[in-house]
Amino acid sequence: MKRYWDAPVWIALGMLACVGIAGHAQTAPAARAQTMAEVLAASRPSDWHVLDPAYTLYLELASGRVVIELAPAFAPNHVANIEVLTREKYFDGLAFLRSQDNYVVQWGDPDGDDKAKAKPLPPGLVDNGESAYLAPRFALPAAAESALSLGGDAYAGETRIIDGWPVGLDKDHAWPLHCYGMVGVGRDNPPDTGSGAELYAVIGQAPRQLDRNIALVGRVIEGIEILSSLPRGTGPIGFYTKAVERVPIVAIRNGPDVQGLPTYQMLSTHGGTFARYAAARANRRDRFFIRPAGGVDACNVPVPVRRVP
Amino acid sequence: MKRYWDAPVWIALGMLACVGIAGHAQTAPAARAQTMAEVLAASRPSDWHVLDPAYTLYLELASGRVVIELAPAFAPNHVANIEVLTREKYFDGLAFLRSQDNYVVQWGDPDGDDKAKAKPLPPGLVDNGESAYLAPRFALPAAAESALSLGGDAYAGETRIIDGWPVGLDKDHAWPLHCYGMVGVGRDNPPDTGSGAELYAVIGQAPRQLDRNIALVGRVIEGIEILSSLPRGTGPIGFYTKAVERVPIVAIRNGPDVQGLPTYQMLSTHGGTFARYAAARANRRDRFFIRPAGGVDACNVPVPVRRVP
Repeated sequence: MKRYWDAPVWIALGMLACVGIAGHAQTAPAARAQTMAEVLAASRPSDWHVLDPAYTLYLELASGRVVIELAPAFAPNHVANIEVLTREKYFDGLAFLRSQDNYVVQWGDPDGDDKAKAKPLPPGLVDNGESAYLAPRFALPAAAESALSLGGDAYAGETRIIDGWPVGLDKDHAWPLHCYGMVGVGRDNPPDTGSGAELYAVIGQAPRQLDRNIALVGRVIEGIEILSSLPRGTGPIGFYTKAVERVPIVAIRNGPDVQGLPTYQMLSTHGGTFARYAAARANRRDRFFIRPAGGVDACNVPVPVRRVP
Repeated sequence: MKRYWDAPVWIALGMLACVGIAGHAQTAPAARAQTMAEVLAASRPSDWHVLDPAYTLYLELASGRVVIELAPAFAPNHVANIEVLTREKYFDGLAFLRSQDNYVVQWGDPDGDDKAKAKPLPPGLVDNGESAYLAPRFALPAAAESALSLGGDAYAGETRIIDGWPVGLDKDHAWPLHCYGMVGVGRDNPPDTGSGAELYAVIGQAPRQLDRNIALVGRVIEGIEILSSLPRGTGPIGFYTKAVERVPIVAIRNGPDVQGLPTYQMLSTHGGTFARYAAARANRRDRFFIRPAGGVDACNVPVPVRRVP
């Protein structure tokens, strides 16, 4: 299990200069700058790394497949729970329960609140408290401190893209951000009730007020449009009010349990190529744009993912 | 026609203190703070103003009605064009052409690029250049300078909620922001080609890089979920690739041409009630939240709108 505070994955990340993108500079960059497409076209194979299938989920709906990358570095216990749940086929036959416009879709057991009817949880799930929402900053590897900085914003004194994840930081802590497509663990009001048996995905304007209040465990890397275009529920906070409105889950599987999967590569976010990509996104020069923004927020630099044959 | 630089609407707004919400203060507010729901429940009738039906559009689809508030203060010429187009029933029978995930839906004439087949535009449309994307700050009424400030962000040195609209400012200019639900005028690459005959609505993470690059003319105040849950197009930038995929527009009408409409009220954004509302949103204290964010960005304070009998 990868964690920031003991993660071998970080060892390879030590060679980077600190690169920042200042906010709201109104001046256009000098001379001809590359577009995002040009940066990607000029990337080298070594700029990309293969996503580990062991930390990839495959959510099958009648309308298609949604692929989720897990974030064991940030939520090791929740990710372990989700692996238990998917290995035991817990989610198969459950459903999407809620689609709240400009917020989240959520899935799990429609009878989860009824002890008599709820689908039994498999053994081996670990209790998680609210301390799981934050990682200690001191335990971040040195490379995190030189990862691309996108400055502070209304929700965090500092934001960076660390090992592919949008992260907020304060003096003592680091936490993933509620950007579009991020996946988290639903919970009741007491902060220790989320096991991983109910999950949500962000489908709207980043609900950053949820940061540090709930556990993020991953993000959708393919098929988010299947989730974001689900009909909105008409009940409070977007719950479907009738059973027939719920969208059934055919299955959720861990990558190693699925045959014939494509290989996914992600652009490394710790390198000059990603820094150029983010700079191009902050200063759009492709057809159409007449005034480059001069900045970009941490939720608006989606990390490129590609399939390889 | 309301404009910032000659708008009588501003005269009533001169009594306000400058209220700001600092970004990312990590400390919780002292004592018991109101929730958003409590602020609204305690509001007085005078905190609300009726939306002018003359600046409201009704977009009718088979799946329901979408209500759009226009922003003549920011885009007077484009709004005038749209009024001509709707009065002449230009949009009736046209269609949604594009739904790009986490970005925009766009509607207009499927044959608009084919001179032989395009639906003729009505006479009386005004050409608009890129100067329409910015308003001169010096012409803002004094009340705008005391409107609720939400600080600077990656895209603008300063943001405020001015007369209900999220606005970016620099020393010389003011411009509306590409927040969720905002409506703009599609254009081709030359920046002077948008007449208002093709419109778009933001359905994802705020695409703020579009700010000052294209004309915003209003926002959806009811029914955005109808647009945001349209199936995504599978062509480049979300265009529907087959005619049958397009979603037909039954009609678009100006408010005065529609019978039996409800009256809509919007919470005034220039007053203590809205300042308390925004502060409650920046420091969520309702059930569930354990760590108030301490800040909120300008796209994350949607202005309350209600129907009145």
